Amino acid sequence: MRFSTIAVLLFTVAISSSVTIAQERPRLNRAVKFAENFQAAIPRATQDQAANQKIAAFRKKTGKRPNILWLVVDDMGYGDPGCYGGGAAIGAATPNIDRLARQGLKLTSCYSQQTCTPTRSAILTGRLPVRTGLIRPILAGDKLTKNPWSNEVSLAKLLSASGYYTLLTGKWHIGELQGMRPHDIGFDEFYGYYPAQKEISQRFDPRRYPDLVDDPEKLAAFDVIAPDNHLTHGFKGGPTRQLQAVTSTTDMGRADKVLADFSIKRIKELAKGNQPFFIEHCFMKVHCDNFPNPDLGSLSEAKYYYKEAVAEVDLHIGEIMKTLDQAGILENTFVFVTSDNGPQMDGWPDAGYTPFRGAKGTTFEGGVRVPGIAYWKGMIQPGRESNGLFDLMDLFGVSLHLAGVSTDQLPAKHYYDFIDQTSFLLDNAGQSKRDSVYFWWGNQLMACRLREYKIHVKVVLPETPHMQIDYATVREVGLAPWLFNLYIDPKEQLPVGHRRNAWLATLGATLKAHAATFKKYPPKDIGLGQ
Amino acid sequence: MRFSTIAVLLFTVAISSSVTIAQERPRLNRAVKFAENFQAAIPRATQDQAANQKIAAFRKKTGKRPNILWLVVDDMGYGDPGCYGGGAAIGAATPNIDRLARQGLKLTSCYSQQTCTPTRSAILTGRLPVRTGLIRPILAGDKLTKNPWSNEVSLAKLLSASGYYTLLTGKWHIGELQGMRPHDIGFDEFYGYYPAQKEISQRFDPRRYPDLVDDPEKLAAFDVIAPDNHLTHGFKGGPTRQLQAVTSTTDMGRADKVLADFSIKRIKELAKGNQPFFIEHCFMKVHCDNFPNPDLGSLSEAKYYYKEAVAEVDLHIGEIMKTLDQAGILENTFVFVTSDNGPQMDGWPDAGYTPFRGAKGTTFEGGVRVPGIAYWKGMIQPGRESNGLFDLMDLFGVSLHLAGVSTDQLPAKHYYDFIDQTSFLLDNAGQSKRDSVYFWWGNQLMACRLREYKIHVKVVLPETPHMQIDYATVREVGLAPWLFNLYIDPKEQLPVGHRRNAWLATLGATLKAHAATFKKYPPKDIGLGQ
Repeated sequence: MRFSTIAVLLFTVAISSSVTIAQERPRLNRAVKFAENFQAAIPRATQDQAANQKIAAFRKKTGKRPNILWLVVDDMGYGDPGCYGGGAAIGAATPNIDRLARQGLKLTSCYSQQTCTPTRSAILTGRLPVRTGLIRPILAGDKLTKNPWSNEVSLAKLLSASGYYTLLTGKWHIGELQGMRPHDIGFDEFYGYYPAQKEISQRFDPRRYPDLVDDPEKLAAFDVIAPDNHLTHGFKGGPTRQLQAVTSTTDMGRADKVLADFSIKRIKELAKGNQPFFIEHCFMKVHCDNFPNPDLGSLSEAKYYYKEAVAEVDLHIGEIMKTLDQAGILENTFVFVTSDNGPQMDGWPDAGYTPFRGAKGTTFEGGVRVPGIAYWKGMIQPGRESNGLFDLMDLFGVSLHLAGVSTDQLPAKHYYDFIDQTSFLLDNAGQSKRDSVYFWWGNQLMACRLREYKIHVKVVLPETPHMQIDYATVREVGLAPWLFNLYIDPKEQLPVGHRRNAWLATLGATLKAHAATFKKYPPKDIGLGQ
Repeated sequence: MRFSTIAVLLFTVAISSSVTIAQERPRLNRAVKFAENFQAAIPRATQDQAANQKIAAFRKKTGKRPNILWLVVDDMGYGDPGCYGGGAAIGAATPNIDRLARQGLKLTSCYSQQTCTPTRSAILTGRLPVRTGLIRPILAGDKLTKNPWSNEVSLAKLLSASGYYTLLTGKWHIGELQGMRPHDIGFDEFYGYYPAQKEISQRFDPRRYPDLVDDPEKLAAFDVIAPDNHLTHGFKGGPTRQLQAVTSTTDMGRADKVLADFSIKRIKELAKGNQPFFIEHCFMKVHCDNFPNPDLGSLSEAKYYYKEAVAEVDLHIGEIMKTLDQAGILENTFVFVTSDNGPQMDGWPDAGYTPFRGAKGTTFEGGVRVPGIAYWKGMIQPGRESNGLFDLMDLFGVSLHLAGVSTDQLPAKHYYDFIDQTSFLLDNAGQSKRDSVYFWWGNQLMACRLREYKIHVKVVLPETPHMQIDYATVREVGLAPWLFNLYIDPKEQLPVGHRRNAWLATLGATLKAHAATFKKYPPKDIGLGQ
């Protein structure tokens, strides 16, 4: 952490010095610490008990632990699915995602990190990117100073050790060197691609990248540092094979069908056995640049490739859910659908939609508020919707809980940012146990949401007036932090901090307490520092 | 119409002169004229037939024509109800509106005029405000040069003549002088208020209007031109009584409960008889300024009065629907829920939410795209959602159709802008018959939507960078009209006209054809010209 960040935090608190902030737990902040190295949570004993009874009944009935299936779409905007205000209204219907929302729990304050690698590593470790060092995407040419995974304990490792079959299908993007691959860090099997779509497809896309594709000298230079374009299949402790390479935009367009078919095949096989599974299915789409799958025909009203990609992802989600049903394991499987961050807008007009300010790469709501749908037939009441705070890292805690894996085995030297939100998701009247979410940009602490309030001590501002793009400029805010009330100002347009000194004090104290965790549990630097 | 508007239109077409626009019906525009004085519509014979069979079966089964109930909320933003992305996510849950959407047809491209009076008069006449002269709200001190209603044929008049009991409950705001009141222009009964909330309540609100309330001289001047603050009860050709006056903000807060109770009472009575009814229930809320009803307690998580108002309206909608059910007429009643325009933002922070650009008083989507939910148990398939274009004026045509009233009796000297969208709403696979919507601001033609494209020849731009308010500045756009693709740019941020010359030509021709209707059917001037 930069000293400047801490300075801002102290400053934040200082400007509110007229208000008492010395109390250990300001009343606005309802969270309580259960252990020094765990994120504070709102105590909700009654719903915890109800959820545990539900799980006990499930185990008694089935004699099994549930399967866990995460469906992670790449860069899909909060507003893209129909159930979040988009869908057919913006030219790409998402009937399958919408159905899951209707028949499950739709979260409207579900948060990711502001880019890919940070989110993907955080949900597998239950820890903020700044703690694991994976503070930004690993890009072509990056030289890491250490393997971030060497002292991390991934969810896949814990679940695998407890008897789950663990598979990651699709995009990885958290390291392609030995020791950093999915099947090195806990997954029993990996079937997918290391990088994001555009890192592969730009090699074959003269319309977007003529300066690369049509210039032999640059192309040669690119090929030296180009990411792996192969479909890779690896097993823990076993062989890693390079399967077919993506050598055209058409290949790229077909990738998600290949991946969906693979997950479907494995689900069918695993359904026949007794071993529960954890599958993280990571779509390549809808990360720019998108190419339609020529075998599927036109899928969207809008026709733009991004829209076709949204519709295709929805199609695969429908196929995967149908497979669970036909294999007879729909009631045995906890499903969570989400996106790894807000939409990336620099591909516009071929890009996604968020109703909020900002986009991928910013810590405004547009960058970090994502779709989040929890579905479990018979275990999650259909038609639920909640604005309770949920950080995608909480999936770490929920998954451990569902698998019956104790958090006691997590290393005490690590600080954990997840909250076990099992009872929020499973109890029919479940409320969030999370009172605050923290937003980082690289190694800089930017913002915090507490209840409906969001405080920004730094902001990522766009270089163009109309849209936010990633890798924009980080700027310190002015004399006072920006405080927004997201109920009355979901688009974060009009700061109200000057009218909310007491809240500024509480939010400042909350940020300060968060910053203090880094004193005893220092952040990790793996060479991605900015 | 100003000559400048026509000039802009000709110019619009001129800049696209390299493209052939002479054809009578450009292919992008699918609409066909059925009569010279009716808006062109997309022919959909199959669904028309299906809908008519449905209606015939209904008549055969019940021996009746259906009741028609419009629930018109004042100034509610597109994003305010939960089913449109707001609700609990912005601190005011709307379970009853959401239920109607789930069990009916949710429209996502439903358009109003950009302010109150224009919308309210348009839906009752099937004609654009510029044709009736009601181009803006009638405000204190306005002197009209003629009664706009004198040669208009309202829906209420047509339905009443055909045997319906016609009632308008709540806000009117289309004239309070004799000859302009609801019970003068076709309604059998009126029970409500003439003006909007803030026009009444400012008289008693020293917190917002100290310069009025606390200054005796100004107060005296205001009282001379103050709008009627009485609850008024009138009958066609019968007595008009002034009931209790609103003399405090508390009275104002209670108004919608009084109105809902009245509609509920009448629905119960009418359900016992054989006469079908048309009730237009117009809420006073959520128009600024909002005051909570002290008898109802806190209704929202956000607590702001606007939010409390949204929750209260939802509560009343639930009560009204329950009444229909308990009275045994749920299956006999066509219900439509909507708002008269986008949210008014100058009351911020006590204001509404739209994900779109602009707000009430602008012709950007934020000003004119509104919630639109059609519900009819047994007749409209639950769970439908459509992005097909629907102009609230189309309610005029739908209502005539449902009541079996022929459009033949509409005066041939009038131009009609509505489209009979009955089959869109009733057929399970119904699609919109409307290909274009026109947006006016006073007597100026501003914009047109055709399919997913929207062209602006003039725009209303805000005086503040963060939000739009009504009565903002109208400006001519630059060299080329602004063309937005609402699928890829729902927020109307990046014009793409320079890449869409062919579409500009079609949209230009569509606008030109629209403008041409005013040559044979001249606009009416009633003294509200700007």
